[in-house]
Amino acid sequence: MSQRAPEREAISELTTGRLSVYLRCLTFLESIGQRTVSSHELAERFHLNSAQIRKDLAIFGEFGTRGVGYNVATLREHLIHTLGLDRTRNVIIAGAGNLGMALADYGGFNEGGFHIIALADSDPAKFGKTSRSGIPVVPFASLSTTIRTSSVEIGIIAVPSPAAQHTYDALVDAGICAVLNFAPIQIRLRPGVKLKSVDLRINLESLSFYLKNVEDGTCGF
Amino acid sequence: MSQRAPEREAISELTTGRLSVYLRCLTFLESIGQRTVSSHELAERFHLNSAQIRKDLAIFGEFGTRGVGYNVATLREHLIHTLGLDRTRNVIIAGAGNLGMALADYGGFNEGGFHIIALADSDPAKFGKTSRSGIPVVPFASLSTTIRTSSVEIGIIAVPSPAAQHTYDALVDAGICAVLNFAPIQIRLRPGVKLKSVDLRINLESLSFYLKNVEDGTCGF
Repeated sequence: MSQRAPEREAISELTTGRLSVYLRCLTFLESIGQRTVSSHELAERFHLNSAQIRKDLAIFGEFGTRGVGYNVATLREHLIHTLGLDRTRNVIIAGAGNLGMALADYGGFNEGGFHIIALADSDPAKFGKTSRSGIPVVPFASLSTTIRTSSVEIGIIAVPSPAAQHTYDALVDAGICAVLNFAPIQIRLRPGVKLKSVDLRINLESLSFYLKNVEDGTCGF
Repeated sequence: MSQRAPEREAISELTTGRLSVYLRCLTFLESIGQRTVSSHELAERFHLNSAQIRKDLAIFGEFGTRGVGYNVATLREHLIHTLGLDRTRNVIIAGAGNLGMALADYGGFNEGGFHIIALADSDPAKFGKTSRSGIPVVPFASLSTTIRTSSVEIGIIAVPSPAAQHTYDALVDAGICAVLNFAPIQIRLRPGVKLKSVDLRINLESLSFYLKNVEDGTCGF
């Protein structure tokens, strides 16, 4: 308990995102049998900033050994613990259209700390069907029951925009306090509920910016 | 031409992402008829950092007027120009499965600077079909022809992971130099080609971190 409060204040959402990236890198290094890594090597290999790495990891105390670097397995375990991935959280996806189905089968969504219980949809034609990986579709009307009986902690909004606010409210009413939203609209928030909205268009805009600046370059038309 | 070089060096990918966020905010403010906005109000209203806003926007020179703030329409136009969204870029989606179909119909993917030409798939059963919004599925074998005849500039990888590298290579061979990748694998890069990989799991990990730190709180089970 005593470790929790400072972490909560010190670690911003941006930092959390970087910790996830470090975790990816360490998982890869462990898979190829590497036992230690320096912040410099991490930075070089994965195109990161070594000063930022040292700063981010210093939040948790001293992990690195000067001249040797970090122990890959130890640091990886610590990141898993910090991100709360050392226990499994149940997830429900609201919306069994193309997006919901894609997310249900998306690599990494149903492993390593997360378990997708079901897709919820209001179309009776979909009830009882499953995604390719076997996640069942349940009626949206039974959302609350499914969430309570399966102790679901995270809800994903994968419904069309006009249904997103209603879906958010239904998830929160059923006891969900962490929501991942894919609908490109502003959700009216409820207190005490964490909402993370994914804006996929930002990635296209980043590519547009790149293309604008290489237009005098050698690539493309 | 003279403005291009400093922009290219000064604006990192992280900044580009923030510019997209500012653009969302300004588009919203314009839609409700607001004519000026201060960095402080932008920060308050959209949960951003006002010092960061001033720093980011200062890259482009002086836009704000002390005590008045930014002109919403002017700043919005400038961001659109900077991000290269004042002309339309053609996009192709490789993979017409659930993810490809979801992206083809995703709000904001086929407007405001982007035009999705087609989905390419290797399954003959899908040829000639369309997404809900009317984007046609073409044979993967005609990827190169479609890219050249339609001057496609951006390729999206929405195929299963085992096919992602082959798809990347095919896009690059056909002349694409900006790729958005949704497959959760490391792509072997080709020089001069911009790759942006989207890792959707990072968003779930961020929610896990939040839940871990409210476990002594009032929300949930």
